[in-house]
Amino acid sequence: MQTRIEHDTMGEVAVPGEALWGAQTQRSLQNFRIGNERLPRPMIRAMGLVKKAAALTNAELNQISQELSRYIVDAADEVISGQWDSQFPLVVWQTGSGTQSNMNCNEVIANIANQKLGNHLGAQKPVHPNDHVNRAQSTNDSFPTAIHVAASLQINELLIPAVTRLRDTLYVKSQEFADIVKIGRTHLQDATPLTLGQEFSGYVSQLDHALLRLEQALVGLYELPLGGTAVGTGLNAHPDYAVEVAKTLGYLTGLPFVTAPNKFEALAGRDAAVFASGALKTLAVSLNKIANDIRWLASGPRCGFGELRIPENEPGSSIMPGKVNPTQSEAMTMVVAQVLGNDTTISIAGASGNFELNVFMPVIAYNLLQSIQLLGDACNSFNDHCAVGIEPNHEKIEHFLHDSLMLVTALNPVIGYENAAKVAKTAYKEGKTLKQVAVELDLVTAEQFDEVVRPEQMVSPNAK
Amino acid sequence: MQTRIEHDTMGEVAVPGEALWGAQTQRSLQNFRIGNERLPRPMIRAMGLVKKAAALTNAELNQISQELSRYIVDAADEVISGQWDSQFPLVVWQTGSGTQSNMNCNEVIANIANQKLGNHLGAQKPVHPNDHVNRAQSTNDSFPTAIHVAASLQINELLIPAVTRLRDTLYVKSQEFADIVKIGRTHLQDATPLTLGQEFSGYVSQLDHALLRLEQALVGLYELPLGGTAVGTGLNAHPDYAVEVAKTLGYLTGLPFVTAPNKFEALAGRDAAVFASGALKTLAVSLNKIANDIRWLASGPRCGFGELRIPENEPGSSIMPGKVNPTQSEAMTMVVAQVLGNDTTISIAGASGNFELNVFMPVIAYNLLQSIQLLGDACNSFNDHCAVGIEPNHEKIEHFLHDSLMLVTALNPVIGYENAAKVAKTAYKEGKTLKQVAVELDLVTAEQFDEVVRPEQMVSPNAK
Amino acid sequence: MQTRIEHDTMGEVAVPGEALWGAQTQRSLQNFRIGNERLPRPMIRAMGLVKKAAALTNAELNQISQELSRYIVDAADEVISGQWDSQFPLVVWQTGSGTQSNMNCNEVIANIANQKLGNHLGAQKPVHPNDHVNRAQSTNDSFPTAIHVAASLQINELLIPAVTRLRDTLYVKSQEFADIVKIGRTHLQDATPLTLGQEFSGYVSQLDHALLRLEQALVGLYELPLGGTAVGTGLNAHPDYAVEVAKTLGYLTGLPFVTAPNKFEALAGRDAAVFASGALKTLAVSLNKIANDIRWLASGPRCGFGELRIPENEPGSSIMPGKVNPTQSEAMTMVVAQVLGNDTTISIAGASGNFELNVFMPVIAYNLLQSIQLLGDACNSFNDHCAVGIEPNHEKIEHFLHDSLMLVTALNPVIGYENAAKVAKTAYKEGKTLKQVAVELDLVTAEQFDEVVRPEQMVSPNAK
Amino acid sequence: MQTRIEHDTMGEVAVPGEALWGAQTQRSLQNFRIGNERLPRPMIRAMGLVKKAAALTNAELNQISQELSRYIVDAADEVISGQWDSQFPLVVWQTGSGTQSNMNCNEVIANIANQKLGNHLGAQKPVHPNDHVNRAQSTNDSFPTAIHVAASLQINELLIPAVTRLRDTLYVKSQEFADIVKIGRTHLQDATPLTLGQEFSGYVSQLDHALLRLEQALVGLYELPLGGTAVGTGLNAHPDYAVEVAKTLGYLTGLPFVTAPNKFEALAGRDAAVFASGALKTLAVSLNKIANDIRWLASGPRCGFGELRIPENEPGSSIMPGKVNPTQSEAMTMVVAQVLGNDTTISIAGASGNFELNVFMPVIAYNLLQSIQLLGDACNSFNDHCAVGIEPNHEKIEHFLHDSLMLVTALNPVIGYENAAKVAKTAYKEGKTLKQVAVELDLVTAEQFDEVVRPEQMVSPNAK
Repeated sequence: MQTRIEHDTMGEVAVPGEALWGAQTQRSLQNFRIGNERLPRPMIRAMGLVKKAAALTNAELNQISQELSRYIVDAADEVISGQWDSQFPLVVWQTGSGTQSNMNCNEVIANIANQKLGNHLGAQKPVHPNDHVNRAQSTNDSFPTAIHVAASLQINELLIPAVTRLRDTLYVKSQEFADIVKIGRTHLQDATPLTLGQEFSGYVSQLDHALLRLEQALVGLYELPLGGTAVGTGLNAHPDYAVEVAKTLGYLTGLPFVTAPNKFEALAGRDAAVFASGALKTLAVSLNKIANDIRWLASGPRCGFGELRIPENEPGSSIMPGKVNPTQSEAMTMVVAQVLGNDTTISIAGASGNFELNVFMPVIAYNLLQSIQLLGDACNSFNDHCAVGIEPNHEKIEHFLHDSLMLVTALNPVIGYENAAKVAKTAYKEGKTLKQVAVELDLVTAEQFDEVVRPEQMVSPNAK
Repeated sequence: MQTRIEHDTMGEVAVPGEALWGAQTQRSLQNFRIGNERLPRPMIRAMGLVKKAAALTNAELNQISQELSRYIVDAADEVISGQWDSQFPLVVWQTGSGTQSNMNCNEVIANIANQKLGNHLGAQKPVHPNDHVNRAQSTNDSFPTAIHVAASLQINELLIPAVTRLRDTLYVKSQEFADIVKIGRTHLQDATPLTLGQEFSGYVSQLDHALLRLEQALVGLYELPLGGTAVGTGLNAHPDYAVEVAKTLGYLTGLPFVTAPNKFEALAGRDAAVFASGALKTLAVSLNKIANDIRWLASGPRCGFGELRIPENEPGSSIMPGKVNPTQSEAMTMVVAQVLGNDTTISIAGASGNFELNVFMPVIAYNLLQSIQLLGDACNSFNDHCAVGIEPNHEKIEHFLHDSLMLVTALNPVIGYENAAKVAKTAYKEGKTLKQVAVELDLVTAEQFDEVVRPEQMVSPNAK
Repeated sequence: MQTRIEHDTMGEVAVPGEALWGAQTQRSLQNFRIGNERLPRPMIRAMGLVKKAAALTNAELNQISQELSRYIVDAADEVISGQWDSQFPLVVWQTGSGTQSNMNCNEVIANIANQKLGNHLGAQKPVHPNDHVNRAQSTNDSFPTAIHVAASLQINELLIPAVTRLRDTLYVKSQEFADIVKIGRTHLQDATPLTLGQEFSGYVSQLDHALLRLEQALVGLYELPLGGTAVGTGLNAHPDYAVEVAKTLGYLTGLPFVTAPNKFEALAGRDAAVFASGALKTLAVSLNKIANDIRWLASGPRCGFGELRIPENEPGSSIMPGKVNPTQSEAMTMVVAQVLGNDTTISIAGASGNFELNVFMPVIAYNLLQSIQLLGDACNSFNDHCAVGIEPNHEKIEHFLHDSLMLVTALNPVIGYENAAKVAKTAYKEGKTLKQVAVELDLVTAEQFDEVVRPEQMVSPNAK
Repeated sequence: MQTRIEHDTMGEVAVPGEALWGAQTQRSLQNFRIGNERLPRPMIRAMGLVKKAAALTNAELNQISQELSRYIVDAADEVISGQWDSQFPLVVWQTGSGTQSNMNCNEVIANIANQKLGNHLGAQKPVHPNDHVNRAQSTNDSFPTAIHVAASLQINELLIPAVTRLRDTLYVKSQEFADIVKIGRTHLQDATPLTLGQEFSGYVSQLDHALLRLEQALVGLYELPLGGTAVGTGLNAHPDYAVEVAKTLGYLTGLPFVTAPNKFEALAGRDAAVFASGALKTLAVSLNKIANDIRWLASGPRCGFGELRIPENEPGSSIMPGKVNPTQSEAMTMVVAQVLGNDTTISIAGASGNFELNVFMPVIAYNLLQSIQLLGDACNSFNDHCAVGIEPNHEKIEHFLHDSLMLVTALNPVIGYENAAKVAKTAYKEGKTLKQVAVELDLVTAEQFDEVVRPEQMVSPNAK
């Protein structure tokens, strides 16, 4: 491979001849051969947005020329589009501030711009990676800004729509199933009845709350560290820069970004990310309940609960013909386990800042964005390949409903709790129906039983 | 020990003669000899509040008589006061719905009331534990309601005031320290300066955000499951009951409780508790940063950073005379580790509901309330025994500030980044001051140096 | 309350008149009003053992007189017995080294001894808390030694026997159930058959492995920090002390304690505790599987899997007569959630040592010992109140076995996988038996079917 | 893109024309568009090894012909080599058993073999993916076997050598630094001295223990589920198959694999992986201590501890000239945070098996292998780019040692603890040396002081 020589304050470095990156990226590549986890696409896009917003704001505040700004903006747009992702080769496991990834972005944008201005790779002029692309920035404020921008965009563009789609599907199901009375289960044990629609309405309500919690978490993510520069003081930035650049990022993304009220916190703490992870984790917990309920209710087909039918998407077994498995629930619950682990990682990382900087930023970015991506994708997948196709198994539902001993609860007011318990226990022991036993014990007549024990009357508040 | 015989639907049980509890509590005591962790005081208080609110509402809706209601309310008031905590002997590790703890509360209140009405212990009349004290309730809705009430009260009465106190103390410090210029540190390495007041303002801002997040978390805790009864349908409750009992609880506590919009979620999911734990965990993460910064800045006294002095509260060592340790920071960071672990527990428990009920409620209650208690107490302790007494060590701060190589950053505009780097590196290698080296290298005169390198000019945005 | 005045190097402190503790304990009581979690009994016992072993060893090495040693040993024996637990009032949330708890133990033992020697409380002579009781020790080596001793004893005396009991019960069940052929389930879906005994043998094997892992974890806990004194160098200890005192502790407890090969690690790292928590966590994970399987297999009684019957220990519901819940499984799975959270706490605490000391020791002790206690107690409770009483529900097992579509797997060799799949799918769609469909489709005769489809032949390796 | 049509029991699927995979892989690709995390290389290699071992064993037991076996073995060797990784496109977030990844491997190997035998892609003959490549296997036993094989190989080939290298480097340093006496620090506060070599010996001992724990964890990973087939019974496998195939895998890898003693556990539990993650987590905790100590000891260069110099690998700041950061420590501690989160994920996944199968296997594989990879790579990186270059800063070490107040401990025997405390406190308050104060207070002469206070005498046990 052909190389070119670049230099920085520590000396010379050989860089691949065609690479858009420069010396600092190259050093990081060589010094950190750890794993394969690169910074994800949303993070590269967000770094591009930060560079674009900074260039626009710096021009507006006369910190760089209009012309340089225009070239930086054009180059940043290409980075934002995803066209140059291959030029971001660094892994998560680097310096904890993300300095080399920030420099990677500066170097790539400078090289794109300088090439368009007729100069060679590595020329560093007229657009200089530090003096112009990184103008009025430090990694310490621009990298966490990129985390906030990336997470905010992914939550708004991917996650909220995906959760909403699944919520809407489940809502439609809850309406469709509104009149299907079925046995309830608490402690995994038969309980009093409810409708299948009511059961699904609980899932809808969980997701409605999840959407609210995501909005609550976004409030903190919308506060941007940019303008704090190296340690939060804003050294080398224009006094109006922080406010203006947040506005510009808001304009570029359509999101209500504001400058963080305190830049010392904004650099040294990543609390907004920790809290956002808490909201993601809570969503995961809700999805776990939903995915589990559905796979248990679809268990069988013959030897389980079997009250629901879910789509058959793939052969379930290479040895057992005709087997169908709740694979979408399985993917979902694995995602949940991942998100819960990611939350532990983010919490530990967030707790570990010192003095003027938190140096666990790449690992926070990686886990936070992975949680968002996986939850969003899993909601879409679960929706498309499972939820939309859920159907009730009426025979099974009916069978269980009428077989259940807990309908005896309806007899409480007529024959008393103690007698009712006796009926239930006898029926269970002797393998009989409640009606048989109740009549045999002379507690009610068959007609009375039929009049009183009506599951469809038991699914709403009814005390007078 | 003398005993009396009580019975329930499963037969007879011997109960300690003077115990206010009855058969069901006794069975749980015998069946669950696991650990020593009883349900905490705030949970007992909250169960008492639930019983009181239910009795008031049931009387209002003509479900029980005014007289019985009055006796239940009086007995509940005694439970609320803490007078009968010894009568709640059950541990956390029982049935996952908390059924026996709910029955414990029903039994205690019934016995108190019946004794006042001239009846003997265990009489179960005129006040019956199930028919009257538990009226229109199931454990499945009243126990999670008690969790929400207990957590809401503890957050409002203990945690928010404690965080606010610490926040206010740190705010006063940040004002007092507003003019003390000191060296900044990023990556634990010397960086450009800031004021000690700015550093503390970051802590204040973290706690301001924490207070906001607690308010966000309370929104979900204010939604009460009560009225859902056994499976969420409200079977055996009056149609107006759910709304009214939430209002009553609001009235009794001064908190804006409302009935949960969906009772199926409210029984089967504990998402609001999971999210609240996320907010507590985020607060813990902030406190970790603060407590750590303070103990590192106070490290020494001779061989560490030593920029802060903290109160000497106890002899630090039995072997090393005169040793003083940052023990309040240590207690705080241990609390943080506990809260992070509790968050894992709560997340797993919250994710594990099935069908119409989550049966991990006691462990959720225990961990959530422990996190609140520990954070609240630790904030108060840290405030009183550490934060209020923090003082700057001016000599050390001055010494470091002027010794630092990163002041060289101020020379960038005059001699350029490359020359500045050369000055810093030479000074470091040869153990000289920046000024010495800069003058020796003929880059500036001593006068110029003094004019340009002025740390107090480096603590705010300054680009023109 | 009457008080007496004690003093230490920081001045005077008023101590409750009758308290066996002294100035340092009192200061900690006042400075750390955080939560209610005291150091647990096993920790107090272990501190007593450490003091006893030190006194014996110091006498042997002529560091203290035989007479003083004897009085210290006698007093320590009383502490070990549990007689003076009320004299250990300090909470977990104190200094991270446990210094005040170590001093608490020194003070209590000195006061007991001095009283026996005819002196008044607080006399500090002839037995001095530091010079004699704490001789050749620092908190920094004696407190972590107590953690290792306490955990080792609890694992050996409580946990291993409890796991073994449960293992043995399940083993007996697996033998009893050896011939009961039942349907298998993978992905919650019907699969090929196995015996109920085989299913239970899996649980037995999990617990056999768990016991092995506990032994592996004990290896590290048996290495004792004692002898490292303040920073690991052994300053102020006799050169033979470390080896001898470990031997003495081994003699006193019957456990194979040895002195840690490296005292710098032994004070600054708590890795053995972290690893032990990993073994406890793995046991918890196994128990979760077992407790979950059993409650799902016992679900119903009418509308679930219902293949097992478990003991009815208490009425399950205040509203639904005759309801019985798998409460022992619920207690067990809540314990599991707690142990997993404790593991997070212990990991974070263990990762947070600096330089010559880890100052998260009380929180590690608290969580590690809680995990051991809860797992041990829960195994005993689950064994006594659930496992011993598990019975198969033969009718249900038979019914599912013969209803299952996965028996079709046995037809693979006769009619081919594709035809077998067709039979299973048709039977499912039309609600027929496999036999009906197979005969209707002319793939086999009824006689052939009965000859080939024999579940009891499908429960072992059978390829020729 | 050109496609070909394949079919399975559910119908036809269009597969990319040149793909070596078939229908089942394709369905999974379409049904699970979740994230980008593919099964990692070590897992593909291990699946190839499983197929190879199965083919060899099946031929030996006359279950398939020698010729087919040879072609399968050759194809498997290509998969093992990494040549066909691009043909394994499935993500982690699929069915929880890994069925489609197992089929992916079967399909790829069959297609490679059939092509060599002159047949077209998708021909499924003479080598059939199920009947021959998957012979005597189910995903349920072969996928977890692959997890054990992959983890065992990675631990042996990558992790243990990497930890050993770092351990050896630190050992060499501990020898080199054996005579450098320095101040100790407990609670971040100055304490009695030790040698720098002693400090490093603690790190060495931590890693020695870590290596032992990895060996302990490998014991469980060496037990292989293969031979259990669908539910653990071994249905459709030869009775000798399980034992033989484990031997063969042992022969192919050089590792002491054995067949799991109980196949029901082996399919339904993933406890060995959970325990292994516990060992990895404990290693992470040790590395956190080491990496943290080193970066704090290297903090400065002027305003921190500064006792160590670490290699300067890259410019630390784009704004502060000459700044060097402890980036290898930062990468390491981020890896630690990741491994701790992965451990949470693995624990939750491991706890979530039901009945005859754990369906969280891909997420366990992904996290376990990521933890191993990251820890191994990070140890190598930290070793090469940091540990080998660590140098003491003698001036700083000397300065702190002689400035420290804790040397006063050496005066205890001469002037008593109380007087010593007075000396230390006065020196601190008045900013004097111990010697000055001790002499001024007439407690010792200057000569006596110099004779008694000799730090180099304080670094070993010294009581007589």
